[in-house]
Amino acid sequence: MFVRPDGRDYDEIRPVKITLDYVRYPEGSCLIEVGDTKVICSASVEEKVPSFLKESGKGWITAEYSMLPRATATRNIREAARGKLSGRTQEIQRLIGRALRSAVDLEKLGDRTIWIDCDVIQADGGTRTASITGAFVALYLALKRLELVDAVSSFVAATSVGIVESVPCLDLNYQEDSAAEVDMNVVMNEKGEFIEIQGTGEERPFSKNELNRLLELAEKGITELIKIQKEVLGV
Amino acid sequence: MFVRPDGRDYDEIRPVKITLDYVRYPEGSCLIEVGDTKVICSASVEEKVPSFLKESGKGWITAEYSMLPRATATRNIREAARGKLSGRTQEIQRLIGRALRSAVDLEKLGDRTIWIDCDVIQADGGTRTASITGAFVALYLALKRLELVDAVSSFVAATSVGIVESVPCLDLNYQEDSAAEVDMNVVMNEKGEFIEIQGTGEERPFSKNELNRLLELAEKGITELIKIQKEVLGV
Amino acid sequence: MFVRPDGRDYDEIRPVKITLDYVRYPEGSCLIEVGDTKVICSASVEEKVPSFLKESGKGWITAEYSMLPRATATRNIREAARGKLSGRTQEIQRLIGRALRSAVDLEKLGDRTIWIDCDVIQADGGTRTASITGAFVALYLALKRLELVDAVSSFVAATSVGIVESVPCLDLNYQEDSAAEVDMNVVMNEKGEFIEIQGTGEERPFSKNELNRLLELAEKGITELIKIQKEVLGV
Amino acid sequence: MFVRPDGRDYDEIRPVKITLDYVRYPEGSCLIEVGDTKVICSASVEEKVPSFLKESGKGWITAEYSMLPRATATRNIREAARGKLSGRTQEIQRLIGRALRSAVDLEKLGDRTIWIDCDVIQADGGTRTASITGAFVALYLALKRLELVDAVSSFVAATSVGIVESVPCLDLNYQEDSAAEVDMNVVMNEKGEFIEIQGTGEERPFSKNELNRLLELAEKGITELIKIQKEVLGV
Amino acid sequence: MFVRPDGRDYDEIRPVKITLDYVRYPEGSCLIEVGDTKVICSASVEEKVPSFLKESGKGWITAEYSMLPRATATRNIREAARGKLSGRTQEIQRLIGRALRSAVDLEKLGDRTIWIDCDVIQADGGTRTASITGAFVALYLALKRLELVDAVSSFVAATSVGIVESVPCLDLNYQEDSAAEVDMNVVMNEKGEFIEIQGTGEERPFSKNELNRLLELAEKGITELIKIQKEVLGV
Amino acid sequence: MFVRPDGRDYDEIRPVKITLDYVRYPEGSCLIEVGDTKVICSASVEEKVPSFLKESGKGWITAEYSMLPRATATRNIREAARGKLSGRTQEIQRLIGRALRSAVDLEKLGDRTIWIDCDVIQADGGTRTASITGAFVALYLALKRLELVDAVSSFVAATSVGIVESVPCLDLNYQEDSAAEVDMNVVMNEKGEFIEIQGTGEERPFSKNELNRLLELAEKGITELIKIQKEVLGV
Repeated sequence: MFVRPDGRDYDEIRPVKITLDYVRYPEGSCLIEVGDTKVICSASVEEKVPSFLKESGKGWITAEYSMLPRATATRNIREAARGKLSGRTQEIQRLIGRALRSAVDLEKLGDRTIWIDCDVIQADGGTRTASITGAFVALYLALKRLELVDAVSSFVAATSVGIVESVPCLDLNYQEDSAAEVDMNVVMNEKGEFIEIQGTGEERPFSKNELNRLLELAEKGITELIKIQKEVLGV
Repeated sequence: MFVRPDGRDYDEIRPVKITLDYVRYPEGSCLIEVGDTKVICSASVEEKVPSFLKESGKGWITAEYSMLPRATATRNIREAARGKLSGRTQEIQRLIGRALRSAVDLEKLGDRTIWIDCDVIQADGGTRTASITGAFVALYLALKRLELVDAVSSFVAATSVGIVESVPCLDLNYQEDSAAEVDMNVVMNEKGEFIEIQGTGEERPFSKNELNRLLELAEKGITELIKIQKEVLGV
Repeated sequence: MFVRPDGRDYDEIRPVKITLDYVRYPEGSCLIEVGDTKVICSASVEEKVPSFLKESGKGWITAEYSMLPRATATRNIREAARGKLSGRTQEIQRLIGRALRSAVDLEKLGDRTIWIDCDVIQADGGTRTASITGAFVALYLALKRLELVDAVSSFVAATSVGIVESVPCLDLNYQEDSAAEVDMNVVMNEKGEFIEIQGTGEERPFSKNELNRLLELAEKGITELIKIQKEVLGV
Repeated sequence: MFVRPDGRDYDEIRPVKITLDYVRYPEGSCLIEVGDTKVICSASVEEKVPSFLKESGKGWITAEYSMLPRATATRNIREAARGKLSGRTQEIQRLIGRALRSAVDLEKLGDRTIWIDCDVIQADGGTRTASITGAFVALYLALKRLELVDAVSSFVAATSVGIVESVPCLDLNYQEDSAAEVDMNVVMNEKGEFIEIQGTGEERPFSKNELNRLLELAEKGITELIKIQKEVLGV
Repeated sequence: MFVRPDGRDYDEIRPVKITLDYVRYPEGSCLIEVGDTKVICSASVEEKVPSFLKESGKGWITAEYSMLPRATATRNIREAARGKLSGRTQEIQRLIGRALRSAVDLEKLGDRTIWIDCDVIQADGGTRTASITGAFVALYLALKRLELVDAVSSFVAATSVGIVESVPCLDLNYQEDSAAEVDMNVVMNEKGEFIEIQGTGEERPFSKNELNRLLELAEKGITELIKIQKEVLGV
Repeated sequence: MFVRPDGRDYDEIRPVKITLDYVRYPEGSCLIEVGDTKVICSASVEEKVPSFLKESGKGWITAEYSMLPRATATRNIREAARGKLSGRTQEIQRLIGRALRSAVDLEKLGDRTIWIDCDVIQADGGTRTASITGAFVALYLALKRLELVDAVSSFVAATSVGIVESVPCLDLNYQEDSAAEVDMNVVMNEKGEFIEIQGTGEERPFSKNELNRLLELAEKGITELIKIQKEVLGV
């Protein structure tokens, strides 16, 4: 039967470490490490809103995501060198942005845009979900500095789940992810509600029962991640 | 209580019409109309595979998606004029490609790439799911012409579901989609298995119960869509 | 001696069909079919003018042209995917724009831009001239809706002519066009005046006599096309 | 009545000067001056053909056109800085290429591409036609160096004609061109045959009679230009 | 008189810390910290050479440089989002590449390219010179892993010097750099020879005497940096 | 021992010729010929400043640089056709701009931008330094026309120096430049002060003594170039 490469139980997340204020200039920042996946997350405050929100009284949160070329086992060509963002990058950026906007009351932000930057310096699976979990922390720190913590409507975190060799598993690393038959990213809030579900039958379709088991695992993982976010932020 | 703008029941799909061989040159093509959403779907056969599949013995299916500039109420700038594809377009293209690849045994395709083109000529919500449902038909026709129908492992169709004014609804039109609190696209096969689930709490998070109700509606709709696909194809 | 592939006389245009209001949202639209060439033409009204016309009291008409990837016998790469417009596309767009501007009194348009979109869904030669003929109809419908029909100074239509196997022919289809020694696109108004002549000796130069014969054919064809435009518009 | 700004007769071309071998490295080059319009034309030989001609036994001629930013009264942004070629530039490049290919027997070229570069250093109207006339000379010199003069099937030159204040005029300068009601570029060979006619009713349509008068003027001008080409080349 | 903001002597470099193997996948990597400037440097080995070196028997070293958007006091737009590299980035990349190639016998590299990536995660002046100093260390580690240390012909490091309020200073931080009248980047090897000198009179020209004083300071600083490189590498 | 290909002494510059007002439209222009290197330099005045200088009371000088495709022995692809500027071009443009800004009191310019265009029509080494020397002359002419000559704080010129076969040489031509072990571009003003030094050990590092000898040569050459500038300008 399938044994996880790092010896974890099927319903166990990897060790998580969040270093606050990892870089000096952003209003909020952290380094999040989920196993060997490492992402620098920062939140930058700009005192204006995109044109589609002018005079709406609402603020905005937008996200950008990138990987260092050698964050992975083989070097990737920089998107700046290619001259365009890949579909994958844009998909991830949009996901991170939606997830964080769902966590904040945008009217309380006022005429501000928060720019979230998630830069993966080492990738071992789950970079988009680690980005969401870390970016929430950076965002929280920035809002705290703005004395706008009450704009946060709920903590938000994310994890991946998947079916590997027929076994539903929590928080896949790269090796597991590559072998997964079914792959799902889940974003939830602290009340156990769903913000986003993206599930794909990469290698085969999946049943309602499998879906339910995966969502159970995701809920367990996200609950633990939100607990870690709260501890590190002292909330 | 919420009444659907076109008077449909909450669990009712819009009228669907599929015109086979809508354009002359592609190996397979159709015009799919789902309510006022109209998409020209075509399948073009190329007798070679992308470089990452060279000598793998497997074929490939890839998809492109576009909207005419005035498919919508206000005119959109062409992506060719902008010089780049939007994130939304790339996300949709990747989704269509994954959905169709899941329906076909790529080893039986041989050294071939099937290019799927979905061009929306009129958009009234659900363009990406109508594209999947129509593209499957175009793909089927192309495989038939290649005498490769046995490469199809299962019929595949897609629909959108969502929560509008707290009511879970099947097959949202544009007006409903704009007002949806929760929005979900679901791709399933004829065995009632999931190929892809993409659900987003646009305006608010959603509960496990709501998720289950939405998946039920999607299953009902997709079952009907696959029935229509089979009728039109005479299978 | 050369016999036309579809049995037409040398001075005969292909069957023309114009379906008004083919798509729902544009202020004016039609599907024009010239033989097997099919183009969706739409006219969209924008209540502002380009910066070079600010405060001139004149409006503007501009055109965009595109082909679906599989409008042709072999699939073309999308210009949006390439990230730039080909020289051919830009040349055609500029031609359509000039032709339509010549048909309208731009001062009567007021501070408006009309965006013309010509999207070829099936191509069998003469796509640019069919685009002009159809776009005029879409433009007329849009001006009618704006109650600005009196801004139209003249009907305008276009056709191609060419010399195939030494025989001057009217309205070339793709097979003829590929074999043409001389190729010419002509735009004329209802008074029999020229708006634009673009003639090229693709395979060999041409004499003054040949030119005159080609222009005669073009005049015959365009007279018939304008008659069809008027019938379909009920003018 | 309309008097030409430089006092020329209506059927008179501007003074033409062609300096052979203007730059050192190209296989053929010249500086052509037509009045105040000055273009450096060069012909570069590459010992291979584009992929669409591989193993056809035919060579190819292709052209590029550019203006120095301050070739004109006000400075233009470089196309290299914009990152793309304008529609106008592409149209002109295609025209120059077609014109020169018509002058040469491509089978005699062998497996070679001739790259024509036309760089306008000063622009006073008629830059595209001066480019064709000068580029033919550069091409001739390059073919001479390759001992392939017999590949030239005919001399080719070009001029512009137009109707200014109702008067048909030959070889418009910039001031005349800006005021022209009708504008036409004509390419002819030494036998008085047409290679290309591009006529546009910029400000108003034009009649058959006007067309004939313009073509007469063009023929007169081009005959003189080809005489000058022959003199300077000592043919 | 000018006192340095961090109290350093004029000829004193900032504290330098180099963490080896900072990221997991590259053949060689380090984090270099020079005061508050922090750069992740990695060296990736590719078993082929660029086309201009095919069959030359020589290897190649090339460098890319980037800053995280919020490495600086105000957020910068990503070059990947802009779709092109700035002139500044390209200038720096070329400088880093030249500096490292000068340190290695490329013939001993064999048919290999070493890709150097310098990603600035925090910027406080001197990012290009810190990149060179750190990149040499990453390169050294990669060559060690390839058992090619003897391809290193000399250690190489770099620093900036400049004249601030008339005082020549070593290793400017951002505040000093912004106020510098003269600014110079110097790359040297362990024998005290110059690899590259780039000096600019930003605010005023500079004399031969000033140049000599700046070069003296640079030599002092680079000697210390190479000592640190050797200590950390245990050489 | 190394003999220069054109028989010059090691400390001798090539013949220099500057033709004023070479093109008609720019406020200032010249053709500079340094041996076989020929550059058209023009200065265009725009009555506004870039946004970062709005309301600063200072003007701006910016430069663009390009080569005709066949300015060199083998034809180069146009940067406009590639769709982007090379790193080399951007580096040169930035250098020219800095050099000229150092020669002018930008506050005396007022709310103006001077656009410098350097277009190399023939390249035989030293194109960037010839561009600076020529561009200064074009700039001077433009300022004279604006009656702003007193904004010039000093004459500025540039040359290249290098070590070829161990011999330090002044003003390298292309053949020498290709063989140079060390290559340096120097910009100086009429007081013998440095504006910019860019020295690279292309093939080997260089010593302090070699540096000093190269700077001596550069000073000799630039003194002569400034004398020529003054003569031609009649100053």
